[in-house]
Amino acid sequence: MKELSKLMGYRSDVRVVDATLRDGGLVNDFYFTDEFVKDLYHTNLKTGVDYMEFGYKAAKDMFDVDKFGKWKFCNDEDIREIVGDNNTNLKIAVMADVGRCNYKTDIVNRSESPIDLIRVATYLHTIPTAVEMIEDAANKGYEVTCNIMAISNAQEGDLREALDVLGKSPVNVFYIVDSYGSLYPEQIARIADVYCEFAEKYGKKVGMHAHNNLQLAFANTIEAVGDGVDWLDGTYAAMGRGAGNCAMELLLGFLKNPKYNVYPAIQFVEKHMKKLQAEGTVWGYDLQYLMTGLLNQHPRTAIQFTKEGRTDYSEYYKEIEAQV
Amino acid sequence: MKELSKLMGYRSDVRVVDATLRDGGLVNDFYFTDEFVKDLYHTNLKTGVDYMEFGYKAAKDMFDVDKFGKWKFCNDEDIREIVGDNNTNLKIAVMADVGRCNYKTDIVNRSESPIDLIRVATYLHTIPTAVEMIEDAANKGYEVTCNIMAISNAQEGDLREALDVLGKSPVNVFYIVDSYGSLYPEQIARIADVYCEFAEKYGKKVGMHAHNNLQLAFANTIEAVGDGVDWLDGTYAAMGRGAGNCAMELLLGFLKNPKYNVYPAIQFVEKHMKKLQAEGTVWGYDLQYLMTGLLNQHPRTAIQFTKEGRTDYSEYYKEIEAQV
Repeated sequence: MKELSKLMGYRSDVRVVDATLRDGGLVNDFYFTDEFVKDLYHTNLKTGVDYMEFGYKAAKDMFDVDKFGKWKFCNDEDIREIVGDNNTNLKIAVMADVGRCNYKTDIVNRSESPIDLIRVATYLHTIPTAVEMIEDAANKGYEVTCNIMAISNAQEGDLREALDVLGKSPVNVFYIVDSYGSLYPEQIARIADVYCEFAEKYGKKVGMHAHNNLQLAFANTIEAVGDGVDWLDGTYAAMGRGAGNCAMELLLGFLKNPKYNVYPAIQFVEKHMKKLQAEGTVWGYDLQYLMTGLLNQHPRTAIQFTKEGRTDYSEYYKEIEAQV
Repeated sequence: MKELSKLMGYRSDVRVVDATLRDGGLVNDFYFTDEFVKDLYHTNLKTGVDYMEFGYKAAKDMFDVDKFGKWKFCNDEDIREIVGDNNTNLKIAVMADVGRCNYKTDIVNRSESPIDLIRVATYLHTIPTAVEMIEDAANKGYEVTCNIMAISNAQEGDLREALDVLGKSPVNVFYIVDSYGSLYPEQIARIADVYCEFAEKYGKKVGMHAHNNLQLAFANTIEAVGDGVDWLDGTYAAMGRGAGNCAMELLLGFLKNPKYNVYPAIQFVEKHMKKLQAEGTVWGYDLQYLMTGLLNQHPRTAIQFTKEGRTDYSEYYKEIEAQV
């Protein structure tokens, strides 16, 4: 049983990251209106969120700029359009995927950019490239996180090796990323323990990015914070790929630091997220995501099932169960 | 951190209770078709659920039998219509609310009834009447649980006194009931600790009935089972009052006892629950339930908000926040 003090008190080291545009952008190909993005920015200023992730720094020679909204690419001038000089306490983040980002050219020095934080997303087997990207970003003056994806089917030995390598890099935060939404709180506790061991050894922080396939995104996030994880990702109305993420409004309601406010989050969800859903943008927990979660699989088949409007859930289960 | 063994192994003492008709009946005034109820019964036989709760034994001089479906009253002959002699391992349960049940006349001897288990639902301040009902049911040969509702705003001292009184009664199981869906897993752990202390002292079992206002119904249920709670309530597609319950399909996917099977649950949800939802029956997590959960209030205003089709969430928040 965790200490009550962890529930009633608060750790001033906790940082909340709004990933709505980035993970939510995976739902609507990053086509958000400027009004949406501006209101989101101002909402984050009011809720006390610490970082706002605008999207990806995707390689334009890999992804057609005419087939995605601008937050797939996060040009500095597009961010400036929203935040001006951003003379606020809210820091700006973008994600750079290993293998899908021309980081050497597309990420300029921090002193010339509105961006504060580069989040390097990697699989375990691409850690060496991730380290190069981390070094590049750190050399350019950015804060850097490393988000190790799809760890629910990683071997602990590999994970330890990766964290030991990353520990020696200039990265600031190791992120636990439950890409498949397959992990139970007990497993989060165990994984957080491993991450925290290496974070302590190398003077890093640990972060948590959860998915809601098993209706555990929020539960796993608060489990993690109870285990010593400081950086917490949320998205408004839990908008994110497939089953979605940890709902920002739940997270802000839970956190006890007086700087966080849930009411502006409720206002934003009412004005924008309910509208997106009413217009037919679909994300969030459903039976097909439960199945990929239970089977510890990538949600891509469930996303396809959803897109095709299929309702033959038990047939689908047999299809994917045979893939295990 | 809980022991890994609790995750990979299983406790043979765990019992799963399907509360779909009873808690789900609060959503549709107990108007389920006979086909639904028969399929549910046969599904429970296949999934390995231990108990199926058919509904309430409500007093007919308090509730108009023409204004509710038959599972509000659970006449023995109506249950027999579904289960025949029920020569199966699935046991039959009904709920009897303190103050809303003519238990002396409406509950006959177990030997003459298809029912196996009486679940006595009470508030803390009606424990003395609950004890009378427990004794009545036990004398008539039934297994008995006592479901203490709305404990999220109870004082621990009162709760301890109640458990000490109940411990001396012939009740078999003390139920933790998070009626408002307001409790976090850390609080569940603490409360389970208190319940288990008295359960051990008096040779009883402990049960968990969760609500999903904070998207924690499943998380709190598996937290509880990790804390030594044996009796676990679920409902298919989480159908239940307001924000709903712990989804049976999540629970069955989690439990490791080979007797439980998730596939028939998926089939039932596909055939019946998705249809109910498509026909306009509304339950489950939404922003208004998050608010009553956060504020530790009864969900009745949120249910009203939902029924009226209101979408002014932030106005509603101000209304109920002023009631605290």
